[in-house]
Amino acid sequence: MSVKSHTNWTAEPSKLLRVGKGFTLADVDPDTKPGYDAGKQHGAVDLTEGALSLDDLQERLYAESRADATNAAVLLVLQAMDSAGKGGIIRHVVGSVDPQGVALTAFKKPTDEERAHDFLWRVEQRVPAPGFIGVFDRSHYEDVLIGKVRSLAPEDEIERRYGAIVDFEKRLTDGGTRVVKVMLHISRDEQRARLAERLDRADKHWKYNPGDVDERELWPAYMDAYQTVFDRTSTANAPWHVVPANSKWYARLAVQALLLHALEDIDPQWPAATFDVKAEKKRLAAS
Amino acid sequence: MSVKSHTNWTAEPSKLLRVGKGFTLADVDPDTKPGYDAGKQHGAVDLTEGALSLDDLQERLYAESRADATNAAVLLVLQAMDSAGKGGIIRHVVGSVDPQGVALTAFKKPTDEERAHDFLWRVEQRVPAPGFIGVFDRSHYEDVLIGKVRSLAPEDEIERRYGAIVDFEKRLTDGGTRVVKVMLHISRDEQRARLAERLDRADKHWKYNPGDVDERELWPAYMDAYQTVFDRTSTANAPWHVVPANSKWYARLAVQALLLHALEDIDPQWPAATFDVKAEKKRLAAS
Repeated sequence: MSVKSHTNWTAEPSKLLRVGKGFTLADVDPDTKPGYDAGKQHGAVDLTEGALSLDDLQERLYAESRADATNAAVLLVLQAMDSAGKGGIIRHVVGSVDPQGVALTAFKKPTDEERAHDFLWRVEQRVPAPGFIGVFDRSHYEDVLIGKVRSLAPEDEIERRYGAIVDFEKRLTDGGTRVVKVMLHISRDEQRARLAERLDRADKHWKYNPGDVDERELWPAYMDAYQTVFDRTSTANAPWHVVPANSKWYARLAVQALLLHALEDIDPQWPAATFDVKAEKKRLAAS
Repeated sequence: MSVKSHTNWTAEPSKLLRVGKGFTLADVDPDTKPGYDAGKQHGAVDLTEGALSLDDLQERLYAESRADATNAAVLLVLQAMDSAGKGGIIRHVVGSVDPQGVALTAFKKPTDEERAHDFLWRVEQRVPAPGFIGVFDRSHYEDVLIGKVRSLAPEDEIERRYGAIVDFEKRLTDGGTRVVKVMLHISRDEQRARLAERLDRADKHWKYNPGDVDERELWPAYMDAYQTVFDRTSTANAPWHVVPANSKWYARLAVQALLLHALEDIDPQWPAATFDVKAEKKRLAAS
């Protein structure tokens, strides 16, 4: 079963959006909707149906893991410029899965304790256990994005981190975790419009931070840092995907499709009973 | 605003289901639906509307907490016999809230490390931060339920724990956390039927554990242990609620109402901007 077979996708998003050899971020138009020709209304229907599949697949995966029948897990890594829609992905895509099967971590500015350790220390502690969909809202990639743009570490340390990340993710995928890395890609103009909306609405003020404009001024440097991330860390076992995200509904549908693809690839099955079903029925009836 | 005012509730469930002085668990009929005269279809409508309110209130609470304008949080403690519906509450009630605002912990049999510490050690680490709805799927109460029934600790240690729990929860509520304690109450016959269903369906076998029947044989001892829990730990600041749960839809609606009540009591407000909105609009436009 592929995502394509039962939706309005005209091509498999996991292939279409994947960062392969020769990928150039500057060539991606954030306004496009690769692989999806249908409109927003069809998108809403596909998202609702996809939510049911995602929830079902995750429950199967969880069931398998409880029976010690699989080591598989999924880790969704979300990176983006401010206001690109990470929160909406978590609310509308991840939020459709039973919370008992989701392990969400929002990585903030590192604490003093975290800074005293290697940059992967806090990340290793939050990788999903078998059966779970782990979600990283920001991640170890911050350490080579803002870390690089703001020179928060010496150049050779930044350089070292790309390799450390590749090794870390290799260990994860070797252990059975599907690592789904997503950059939500909005345009600079779209960001201005979204930040402006936060300033216009009193119930959105709390989401606005004057520092957002400071980061925004560094847009080209961030895009360069993302390009380097893609060049150095989009591996066969843990590739990056760049999702055009000016259209929120497309971005949500695309990330859902990437998660569905990962789970369909695992193809989790209800585990067989580890006890004598007939005997247990008798015991239960007598109790 | 009370839950009662905008739904089919005929009385406030937070009062009706509360464990007060002289409460006797044996007097609660798990088949009843206190305070709710309308049927299942109305219940579904109320649950959907309640979900929107719950999500909205939690987002406001989160916003307030980000602005350092509140210490408030909510902690839902779920206890029940096997198959009473904790999972369904988490999926259908908690699952309607943005996952970014929920901190869920499923407490399992303690590990060796956890056993080497005081029973509250692992619990203290999981209390919700301001702005969050924390959910304990099982909790410190296991240490005076299975702990007592199975004599997993000496009698005087069990005895000590009731006081320790009361002190712990007092600290929580003094710090601004609303502690909503819920026992989902099913009948012994209903449990047999639910476990039988797990045995009947291959896709439910993974949820069945032969040990469930062993615990079931100790039903009266568990009911006694719950009664003692209520007598000793249902305090004015952190009262227990016993929710009749033979009807799943009623139980979900009731727990949702208890959460809504806690959040309405906090009455979170969108925080005022901590920056000059006009100046920021200018800066943004120029960026």
